[in-house]
Amino acid sequence: MTSTASRGLVSLVGAGPGDRALLTLAAAERLQTADLVLYDALVSSEVLELATRAQCFSVGKRAGRRSVRQETIIRLMIRAARRGRHVVRLKGGDPFVLGRGAEEGLALRAAGVRFEVVQGVSAAIAAPSMAGIPVTHRGLASGFVVVSGHDESAYGPALESLAPASATVVVLMGLARRREIARCLLDRGWAPDTSAAIVFAASTPASHTWTGTLEQLARAAGPSTDGNPGTIIVGAVVDLATVLASPSATDAAAAAEGKG
Amino acid sequence: MTSTASRGLVSLVGAGPGDRALLTLAAAERLQTADLVLYDALVSSEVLELATRAQCFSVGKRAGRRSVRQETIIRLMIRAARRGRHVVRLKGGDPFVLGRGAEEGLALRAAGVRFEVVQGVSAAIAAPSMAGIPVTHRGLASGFVVVSGHDESAYGPALESLAPASATVVVLMGLARRREIARCLLDRGWAPDTSAAIVFAASTPASHTWTGTLEQLARAAGPSTDGNPGTIIVGAVVDLATVLASPSATDAAAAAEGKG
Repeated sequence: MTSTASRGLVSLVGAGPGDRALLTLAAAERLQTADLVLYDALVSSEVLELATRAQCFSVGKRAGRRSVRQETIIRLMIRAARRGRHVVRLKGGDPFVLGRGAEEGLALRAAGVRFEVVQGVSAAIAAPSMAGIPVTHRGLASGFVVVSGHDESAYGPALESLAPASATVVVLMGLARRREIARCLLDRGWAPDTSAAIVFAASTPASHTWTGTLEQLARAAGPSTDGNPGTIIVGAVVDLATVLASPSATDAAAAAEGKG
Repeated sequence: MTSTASRGLVSLVGAGPGDRALLTLAAAERLQTADLVLYDALVSSEVLELATRAQCFSVGKRAGRRSVRQETIIRLMIRAARRGRHVVRLKGGDPFVLGRGAEEGLALRAAGVRFEVVQGVSAAIAAPSMAGIPVTHRGLASGFVVVSGHDESAYGPALESLAPASATVVVLMGLARRREIARCLLDRGWAPDTSAAIVFAASTPASHTWTGTLEQLARAAGPSTDGNPGTIIVGAVVDLATVLASPSATDAAAAAEGKG
């Protein structure tokens, strides 16, 4: 039974970077009580397994399928909420970081549908961290910039102005344009030997990291992108990756068992 | 009993913005099994209540007390880990965002102590979100900048170069210097009527938000800061706060009960 409090409520929920252990307690609770879950492409199956009583629909891009149109997603949420159902709109990372969460919130507000936001661990910070790259570090970076790499109008304004080495740069959804993005920073005066990394498929078993320089990134060196999700990081903090990369808790457990 | 896998392990854990519901499942699990918890000033008591079997020590600043020196914190962690204890180093937000987490990781690595990082929900994104302010929104901001407002050398390089309105600006630990920070952006050419907000004590019952303009921020208008933690946000996305601010889940439940 849907509780009184969540009847007709839409929860815009951040699913974190993928690993179920990085879901928040609130997100897990909402999934367990939801009637309907509409999830994006980057949400992992182990996260969805928590939604034991809900109907779950993928509305993101899948191989060979188009994504559901934004208006359709909003219409589905409004209709279900008006019927008294508890809807969870599940988004990779945090709902308000490059995820159209605010757009959906505005549409729900306009329709008079009650909603809440459940913040999540953003891949903008977690993907670098999982590769051992802190977005800030005393003496190396006291700030960071996160931009969408989707097109030039998204990353251009910030990256064309940002002084060289003045902050760590994190680019989400920028793999296809990594050459242009690196070129943009080089043209702004960033040193060609500035360290750069690409974290592929963070928080999944297939995760791996490429590291090199900004110049190499501009030449499109490094591994094939294969259309995988990836996070680009530029800045001196990348050099810490080899020292700070720690085995996941699962790996640590396995290693300890082996020794025992 | 400490499990084999976590014997002698230090977990650098993000506690999120304060509300226990925004702790990750992994963070809650680490707290429940830890032997020793060393926590910072901004970690809430309801989060600490999960550490039922651990000794818990505050190492952050408290009224009338100095914080424990960084070298001491590191020495405590190393000593406890070498005795086979599972240490949780609990930090507000995410360990790798302006929290010295990377410094501690480097020191542990140098000492040959096993550690892991458990990412958390960063206040840099969650504090604005809780006030209804998305750090990105289509047509308003396709990126955001996070800097420490601790001193000019921390925020200066990025903010003195960033083109006006090219990204949302988020400043952590900047309340004491909000005038200088606003002045820095105005000098760079940001419009005086650019929207600005301060979110005080996000994720606590005492949370409240001031909104105004960049010019007002530069004149130190708005409420007294009282030494409270606060997050400064500058950019057009601040205008969404009145529309997107949603009641917390608790408030929503109370409202529903009242109606029922």
